[in-house]
Amino acid sequence: MSNRTVYFVSDGTGITAEAFGNAILAQFDLHARKVRLPFVDTVDKAHQAIRQINHSYELEKKKPIVFTTLVNPEVQGVFSEHCKGLVMDMFGSFVRPLEVELGAKSHHRVGRFTDISKSKEYSDRMEAINYTLAHDDGQSNTDLASADVILIGVSRSGKTPTSLYLAMQYGLKVANYPLIPDDFERQQLPPALLPLKKKLFGLTINPERLSEIRNERRPGSRYASLENCRMEVSEAESMMRRAGVQWLSTTTKSIEEISTTILQVIKPTNGVGRL
Amino acid sequence: MSNRTVYFVSDGTGITAEAFGNAILAQFDLHARKVRLPFVDTVDKAHQAIRQINHSYELEKKKPIVFTTLVNPEVQGVFSEHCKGLVMDMFGSFVRPLEVELGAKSHHRVGRFTDISKSKEYSDRMEAINYTLAHDDGQSNTDLASADVILIGVSRSGKTPTSLYLAMQYGLKVANYPLIPDDFERQQLPPALLPLKKKLFGLTINPERLSEIRNERRPGSRYASLENCRMEVSEAESMMRRAGVQWLSTTTKSIEEISTTILQVIKPTNGVGRL
Repeated sequence: MSNRTVYFVSDGTGITAEAFGNAILAQFDLHARKVRLPFVDTVDKAHQAIRQINHSYELEKKKPIVFTTLVNPEVQGVFSEHCKGLVMDMFGSFVRPLEVELGAKSHHRVGRFTDISKSKEYSDRMEAINYTLAHDDGQSNTDLASADVILIGVSRSGKTPTSLYLAMQYGLKVANYPLIPDDFERQQLPPALLPLKKKLFGLTINPERLSEIRNERRPGSRYASLENCRMEVSEAESMMRRAGVQWLSTTTKSIEEISTTILQVIKPTNGVGRL
Repeated sequence: MSNRTVYFVSDGTGITAEAFGNAILAQFDLHARKVRLPFVDTVDKAHQAIRQINHSYELEKKKPIVFTTLVNPEVQGVFSEHCKGLVMDMFGSFVRPLEVELGAKSHHRVGRFTDISKSKEYSDRMEAINYTLAHDDGQSNTDLASADVILIGVSRSGKTPTSLYLAMQYGLKVANYPLIPDDFERQQLPPALLPLKKKLFGLTINPERLSEIRNERRPGSRYASLENCRMEVSEAESMMRRAGVQWLSTTTKSIEEISTTILQVIKPTNGVGRL
């Protein structure tokens, strides 16, 4: 497998650039050493970054791959001129065709996040995170009617991380409820949830995988045993089927994929960054 | 301001494509109606998506902007041929120069997330989220030595969302501790934290902004009063200065920017997706 140093250079955090660059790199069998260089927003800092990158090139005798998201054309220009890596200008490639289509010049404005902490979107997101933390794992029935989404599923099926992701990424208020043996005996969803069926979404999981996960926490317990996991998953799935609640198996899915599917089904009307 | 419909078309969730596309769109004064079309991974689904996009074009008489991240060249090809929007092929633009530089063909493999839930990275991230939830707001001193980062600051300075972001995004175990009047009287950091100074990072905030935030929660309270907020912030900053703890003002910063800065200072050795 090929070795290569990869840089993500940004005038902001570089988080989006890195995520996007990683998706592209995943298309290759590459053993990459990844370095993120955030907040490169002046010509001076550009030269500093380039010294580091060119030093890698001299050590490794292979061109580093350099993804840049630099709004300021002067800063980008320093890279085009002096950097010995393969520079992939992620902004320039798309900004120019957009300028033509929209018949407008781009701002070349750095720091799009600067005022975000004061915005309504930001406080909505904070409120969503607080709501979601307070309604994790069936902790509270208070104000359940305000939830945008309510997740149900057996313990360790992925409810908490999915809830937090939906809150942080989309500003959604998410409650989650574990389905427990009491519910299976009653053969009914937790009573507080019955009037809120339109907001319910179920997570299920392969019993073998569930048993593995639970064994990490409580090795050798009845709770973690394959037999018990099989019973719980089967009961939970029957219950969701009877109640007409849509569900998804989380076994081989990322939190991002689970969240996207939930939003396609539930279509909440609040939140930010709608599908 | 110009109006335009913008589509994000992906064979996966489209989350990264949307984040990256939004960063580019932020360079323009555009009133965009945004539509994400996830999981477009077959020629059939591509034709469906194109029908929707071309319909927008006919209604609006303006080319929709279409960001695509499609690994399969056959699916991308349908867009290049039939779509009446301005198609921005986010993968193709970078995959081809990389193929040349690396002297290798890309996989054209869809669904890079497919097996992530089974990976070590995934379980590390889950463990980090659980740790971080259990150590929110000074709830527990148990196993504090395992923390990668410990955030301190007055109530409502941004500790909880930042902690959760670091856990979800980087798989870091993050504890956070509120600095409270008891600490100010003692003029000392919470005793449990003293041996862990290298992991400490402080968040502070403009007192006027803090008072606004607290007033949303407890309107008219002494806790939310500007006078009290000024006192708490000043005491907390003095304490961090004396203790030699680096800190950052969260007032105008996004969670992403705060997190990136923390990682530059603390340089944790665990976690995933290192800086």
